[in-house]
Amino acid sequence: MDIGGTKVAAGLVDANGEISSQVREPMIANSSAQEGLNAVLSAISRVFPDGAMSVGGIGICAPGPLDPKTGVILNPPNLPCWRNFPLGESVQRRYSAPVKIDNDANAAALAETRWGAARGCRNVFYATIGTGIGTGIILDGKIYHGRTGSAGEGGHVSIDYQGPLCRCGKPGCIEILASGTAIAQRARQEMVIGTNSLMLELAGGDVDAFTGEIVGKAADAGDALAKKILTEAMEMLALWLSNMVDLFDPDVIVIGGGAAALYQPFFGKLHEKISHLTVNPRAHEIPILPARYGADAGIAGGAALCA
Amino acid sequence: MDIGGTKVAAGLVDANGEISSQVREPMIANSSAQEGLNAVLSAISRVFPDGAMSVGGIGICAPGPLDPKTGVILNPPNLPCWRNFPLGESVQRRYSAPVKIDNDANAAALAETRWGAARGCRNVFYATIGTGIGTGIILDGKIYHGRTGSAGEGGHVSIDYQGPLCRCGKPGCIEILASGTAIAQRARQEMVIGTNSLMLELAGGDVDAFTGEIVGKAADAGDALAKKILTEAMEMLALWLSNMVDLFDPDVIVIGGGAAALYQPFFGKLHEKISHLTVNPRAHEIPILPARYGADAGIAGGAALCA
Repeated sequence: MDIGGTKVAAGLVDANGEISSQVREPMIANSSAQEGLNAVLSAISRVFPDGAMSVGGIGICAPGPLDPKTGVILNPPNLPCWRNFPLGESVQRRYSAPVKIDNDANAAALAETRWGAARGCRNVFYATIGTGIGTGIILDGKIYHGRTGSAGEGGHVSIDYQGPLCRCGKPGCIEILASGTAIAQRARQEMVIGTNSLMLELAGGDVDAFTGEIVGKAADAGDALAKKILTEAMEMLALWLSNMVDLFDPDVIVIGGGAAALYQPFFGKLHEKISHLTVNPRAHEIPILPARYGADAGIAGGAALCA
Repeated sequence: MDIGGTKVAAGLVDANGEISSQVREPMIANSSAQEGLNAVLSAISRVFPDGAMSVGGIGICAPGPLDPKTGVILNPPNLPCWRNFPLGESVQRRYSAPVKIDNDANAAALAETRWGAARGCRNVFYATIGTGIGTGIILDGKIYHGRTGSAGEGGHVSIDYQGPLCRCGKPGCIEILASGTAIAQRARQEMVIGTNSLMLELAGGDVDAFTGEIVGKAADAGDALAKKILTEAMEMLALWLSNMVDLFDPDVIVIGGGAAALYQPFFGKLHEKISHLTVNPRAHEIPILPARYGADAGIAGGAALCA
């Protein structure tokens, strides 16, 4: 299952990571805790129509912060009704199969390691780039959780101590510099009056309608400003990933998420840059690969928690 | 054993991490590989005077990059004669006790975890701040090495993508911003003509003689410029450590090394700052502790590799 601020998605995933019979339920962020739980239970019952299917487990990607050991949702900004909500226990009460809970990037990292781009690897650095940047760190084949389950928050690694302030309190987190949201924001800022850019045309003349996707499309079509913005963001990503290489020396870097496509044309360049930005003499051997799972990463991730 | 660019130190370490009977041999950086090995073997024979003592192992902190699995020194900038030198094998040939090799920060991190400030912890972030900044990452009680043994190079995590260039290729690594060397360098830069600072007096009027220690002494005595420089460096360390908390969520942060004393008056402030610079809701529970081992961290570290 994949629980977001606006929807709950569930699916059946087999031992090869293939997803079948997906369902969706709306999730109302400001409903009650019980209504939120009902959406979850309803989605589960719809993928298990006879109520008695034999499954290996029920794995849930839920909004953090959460405690993966106890299955308690702590204080999710996008789902305030679930403050200190024992989601794992509430679902477990209805089903005999084991219930596992983790945050979306951790779970997606595990799915890529079990079945996706990082299959067979022991140490994996996974980043999902979308409206924000989330990361999951797989060490020795398992999600690295740290002391309280709050490890692996690589999107909040700062590379600019004089940069714009992030909601986490740090200046210059990579999330605020290179996510899809950040790219669109930078494009808006650079559109001073009279600037001629394809982005404006693609956005119907409305700067406020800029998205990461629009910047990407304009760059593909050769728009100079869009290319400049993406190149700068790519340079920042390269430095950030080089930090990760010097810390984790991973077997592979996997990049997914809705805005990953923006950077995919740069993967070769990113790889080359990283090998010149680390003390690791074998950094050039670490591949950067696109994720196998896209919009369904949460469902695959949930399943990977039980695999 | 602790092998540096200018000396080899060896000692006997007991099961509680207590060090006895230390010896030192000079190490000539541009001598031959065999002469370097002779200095090592001579130091070992001097701590084992009867040649047949019963020890649990011979643990060696050696200059990196090295391969901790094979005991091969790869390409050490401070000991060029040991390029691709099979140090582990060369020592093992003479002794029956197991020989283990790792880099100094990794080994010192392990010694702190076995016997020092982080005793009993599972996940430890250790930093040694001296002329450079080295780090060791202990996960589940063991040194985290990554794919090729090059993990844990936290001194080369950048927090300033527009910062000064480090030898690793990155701009703005914490090593180039907040090490003892960096602090002295910054003090030199800020001493424009006519600046009145106690640092100048402590350095005998010679700006080139500035050291981290001099900056620290001047700050202790209330010198405004020295205090400003240390406060800025402390802010950068706080951001860098917050990055580490969001990645590793460790049980404890341990800080050692020759320049750690510079920062020790700020540990309380550092701890408070970090708890406001992360997404980790329980970051305030992570203590920042001074290391147990000082100049003898390499000897203790070597021993910890065998414990």
